[in-house]
Amino acid sequence: MPDQNKSQKQTRKQDPDLATIVRTTQGSYRVIVGRDVVDGLGLELRKTGQEGRAFLIADEVLFPGPVRRAQEALERGGYETHVLALEIGESNKNLATLEVVCSWLADRRAERGDVVVAMGGGVTGDLVGFVAATWLRGVAVVHVPTSLTAMVDSSIGGKTGVNLPQGKNLLGAFHQPKLVLQDVGHLETLPPREMAAGWAEAVKHGLILDADLLDMFERLAPQMIALEGDGPVEAIRRSVAIKGEIVSADEFETGDRRVLLNYGHTIAHAIETVSGYGEYLHGEAVAIGMMAAAGIATRLGMIDSELVERQRRVLESYNLPTQASNLDAEAIIDATKSDKKSRGGTIRWVLLEGPGQATTRRDVPDDVVLEAVQAVLD
Amino acid sequence: MPDQNKSQKQTRKQDPDLATIVRTTQGSYRVIVGRDVVDGLGLELRKTGQEGRAFLIADEVLFPGPVRRAQEALERGGYETHVLALEIGESNKNLATLEVVCSWLADRRAERGDVVVAMGGGVTGDLVGFVAATWLRGVAVVHVPTSLTAMVDSSIGGKTGVNLPQGKNLLGAFHQPKLVLQDVGHLETLPPREMAAGWAEAVKHGLILDADLLDMFERLAPQMIALEGDGPVEAIRRSVAIKGEIVSADEFETGDRRVLLNYGHTIAHAIETVSGYGEYLHGEAVAIGMMAAAGIATRLGMIDSELVERQRRVLESYNLPTQASNLDAEAIIDATKSDKKSRGGTIRWVLLEGPGQATTRRDVPDDVVLEAVQAVLD
Repeated sequence: MPDQNKSQKQTRKQDPDLATIVRTTQGSYRVIVGRDVVDGLGLELRKTGQEGRAFLIADEVLFPGPVRRAQEALERGGYETHVLALEIGESNKNLATLEVVCSWLADRRAERGDVVVAMGGGVTGDLVGFVAATWLRGVAVVHVPTSLTAMVDSSIGGKTGVNLPQGKNLLGAFHQPKLVLQDVGHLETLPPREMAAGWAEAVKHGLILDADLLDMFERLAPQMIALEGDGPVEAIRRSVAIKGEIVSADEFETGDRRVLLNYGHTIAHAIETVSGYGEYLHGEAVAIGMMAAAGIATRLGMIDSELVERQRRVLESYNLPTQASNLDAEAIIDATKSDKKSRGGTIRWVLLEGPGQATTRRDVPDDVVLEAVQAVLD
Repeated sequence: MPDQNKSQKQTRKQDPDLATIVRTTQGSYRVIVGRDVVDGLGLELRKTGQEGRAFLIADEVLFPGPVRRAQEALERGGYETHVLALEIGESNKNLATLEVVCSWLADRRAERGDVVVAMGGGVTGDLVGFVAATWLRGVAVVHVPTSLTAMVDSSIGGKTGVNLPQGKNLLGAFHQPKLVLQDVGHLETLPPREMAAGWAEAVKHGLILDADLLDMFERLAPQMIALEGDGPVEAIRRSVAIKGEIVSADEFETGDRRVLLNYGHTIAHAIETVSGYGEYLHGEAVAIGMMAAAGIATRLGMIDSELVERQRRVLESYNLPTQASNLDAEAIIDATKSDKKSRGGTIRWVLLEGPGQATTRRDVPDDVVLEAVQAVLD
């Protein structure tokens, strides 16, 4: 879509913090990425035409400092703002917490014309996004992701959900936000391991679709890790733009486009299942999964071993694991076969054809997968 | 849309049980109304291109007879069918029951390509529809409504939801079905009072949009009540077609069209709130609410008293109440003001301008409302 890209570039000139405009059946929305952009939250939201009151629901680790700053920004935009800060984690991303949040909205008589603002990491975005998707059959939501993983990945695309005891994200909805606002300043207090996990998803975007972005990640690892200079902001913006382009082209994951984002994820999910959630951060498992996928691609003759080693060097320069310990290859293979993304028994593998170029294949022999998995186990 | 109507008429010739085709952003779907049509459930579903397994979730009052018949029909269509029959009522239309149903799906590993079939009254359709809307971020749903209210009203239009302790339908989603199949035979065991409540919504469709349908209801009340001959089937089909036309034109209730369906509902909701849910069936409250609305319209000079009396006679011929006992007019007025459909303090009244003709007005003086409400109280 060259015309769309051109008009996005023109818009960028007037609006340098704009990373992308995501176009969906539920409307278009801007993704803003920069330093201190949270102070413009209310004014940017007003530009979307949103009226009503704002219900800011935040992970309590951001309370009071960053939450109050966001609240003040909403109030500067003219929004009467109510704040709920609560502990939100993978273990309480469930219907019980949904009910707590909805009861809070009910007690304040939140209406269809009001807006919910989700502030926190990916878990917060999933849960609060699902609240917004279902409250009165859907109210507007704004995402203010504060973790790197949420910024480059989960805050874009409208996926929301909660867990059941039987599995993660079994209940959810596609609910596109009105606005996504990412303040890079929020990353400064993030633990290094979580930051690394976020870079894994961003590097993945370079690997599957943008060779220039991959070069940038390769060249600027120390600056990225230290969040120094313009490099990290620009890299996040570009990563966000890739995710936004994919979502615009394949909103409901029904086509061939959005599945590319699952690069490394088939093995990653299996590693998470077999090791028990908690042993590896999701981005860490994805890094190992991408190494296994690269191993498959090279065994099938799709890429040479040089690209595999380049991928390994880049991931390691972000302090990401590329090998897993104490896991059984057969158990991982079994887990891939019960992955919900498999259909009718065959797994759709996302594999590289070159730097910045990915495709999908269903015809991968079992022994190739087994060898590639064994190669990433210590 | 004359062309659409023409093509629907042509389709009807080949498919005499087809009541309407509803067109939405989530796709188009057929609404089939007839006797014994439940036996074609599987074959009709197959025509939509639906694959996967079927998960039939039914109100336990329909178990085993009607449920087994529906299951066999699904199996004849080639669907491996799993059945869950459970007690579903307004008092357990909540997140706890949602979790029970979803756990059942989780244990059977229901997948995105599978289909949920909701069989029962309006409460079943709301709850099971919400399950389908959120399970794995949305799977296909088929509605087999078995109450008259669900047939002529709630099964068409994709509204789904569950209650919170603070209010009804506070959580929900718009989730359009793949197919709606209404077997008039299911009505034969319905209690007379519930049938009457269903006719209230059907008569409402005539009052607001279709003078011919109103004539038919006036002329054929005894046959309708006894479910004798073709009249009832044809009246349900026409009522369904009106609902379908409105939903196609105003899917998300954001325009001026769908709100017309709320004729009588502002006062009805207030009566239900003040009397406590359970005293009046929803359709009974709507009948009284329509009388109050007609009283407002005649006081504003929009209709003459002849139409008011005609409306009363028709409703009474279906054994519907047109007056409420032991209620306080001021309490009802207060309740209308906290109705969630009011915005910024002014209520949008749906009022008749003539038989089969409705409009909305915001400028109704308080004393006119009070007089009209007092007139429907004993």
